Amino acid sequence: MRVYLAGPDVFLPQAEVWAERRKAICARHGLIGVSPLDALTDEPAAGTDLPEWRVIALRNEALIRSVDALIANLTPFRGPSADVGTACEVGFMHALGRPVFGYATTAVPFTRRTREYAAAHGGAVAAPDGTWRDADGMLIEQFGLGDNLMLEAAIMDSGGQLIVEDIPAEARWTDLSVFERCVEAAAASLRATRA
Amino acid sequence: MRVYLAGPDVFLPQAEVWAERRKAICARHGLIGVSPLDALTDEPAAGTDLPEWRVIALRNEALIRSVDALIANLTPFRGPSADVGTACEVGFMHALGRPVFGYATTAVPFTRRTREYAAAHGGAVAAPDGTWRDADGMLIEQFGLGDNLMLEAAIMDSGGQLIVEDIPAEARWTDLSVFERCVEAAAASLRATRA
Repeated sequence: MRVYLAGPDVFLPQAEVWAERRKAICARHGLIGVSPLDALTDEPAAGTDLPEWRVIALRNEALIRSVDALIANLTPFRGPSADVGTACEVGFMHALGRPVFGYATTAVPFTRRTREYAAAHGGAVAAPDGTWRDADGMLIEQFGLGDNLMLEAAIMDSGGQLIVEDIPAEARWTDLSVFERCVEAAAASLRATRA
Repeated sequence: MRVYLAGPDVFLPQAEVWAERRKAICARHGLIGVSPLDALTDEPAAGTDLPEWRVIALRNEALIRSVDALIANLTPFRGPSADVGTACEVGFMHALGRPVFGYATTAVPFTRRTREYAAAHGGAVAAPDGTWRDADGMLIEQFGLGDNLMLEAAIMDSGGQLIVEDIPAEARWTDLSVFERCVEAAAASLRATRA
């Protein structure tokens, strides 16, 4: 079974090395990891003169269409939420009707992360009804989730799982133990579905 | 033609009032606006005891499946990028093969927004090759786009358009002129496709 490894890890220094480490972990659990950095034998943008960013996106979409499941790194990225490119891929895969798994190297609830972000950016305001709003008056979600409800619901509805665990901040992008727990869960789930 | 109005506008105070204003603008351009806040006659979670957040997500997905196109508010939300829930819906609709349009009330390029965010959160570092990285060493995209490449590529590949324009920060979520430009572009495009 092949799984696409979505996440902002592609922005890490030596991203290819990290992709190989992740693939090795997948292999240990009987899965074939597919990285957004992988080349395709049949490049969807071949013969076109599309700019690099569109070539990358077409390749990622083709890779996602080619796999059995998606594992998304939803660790907060430049703000209280996950990377938007990864979120876009989660929605894409969910619409294809295949399982989406997610993980994050923080277990701090989304509501708390967002309140802290709002407090540091103009202030967070509590209303008498117990809701919180940021400095723009925008409501802060309070569903007890790990991130925006659409992300977590896409995972749950697809039959996947979200695994979160607190890893020290300095190892947030390099510790692969939470990723491995997610791979293990995905492998077990995919085996059960296949059986 | 029916269009789903994705965006973090659902978090605004009196979100229903804003949804009605947006629908009125759609109507002016011959489109039927569908809000994430709309009820469905055939609620997908009816008869289940799913928690509220899953009911909302199932409803949004059903609404998205029911429309001809999606218009996404990609104005930066709590960080340099768009709202992740909206990004998830953009990917979802793109996978359904229908057009996705987007708009933002800032024309500041994504690269500059991200560099400014990084500078304010631990520092942005330039490498000799002209690339920039944040304090975690994560690369800052430099494709001259409005946001992460997956979002803008989803829009372009789907046959949609991205409209950006600088609106003063205090009116970022309430000025509807950029939304209206996007509705106008979507209406023209959908008419042309139908003809």
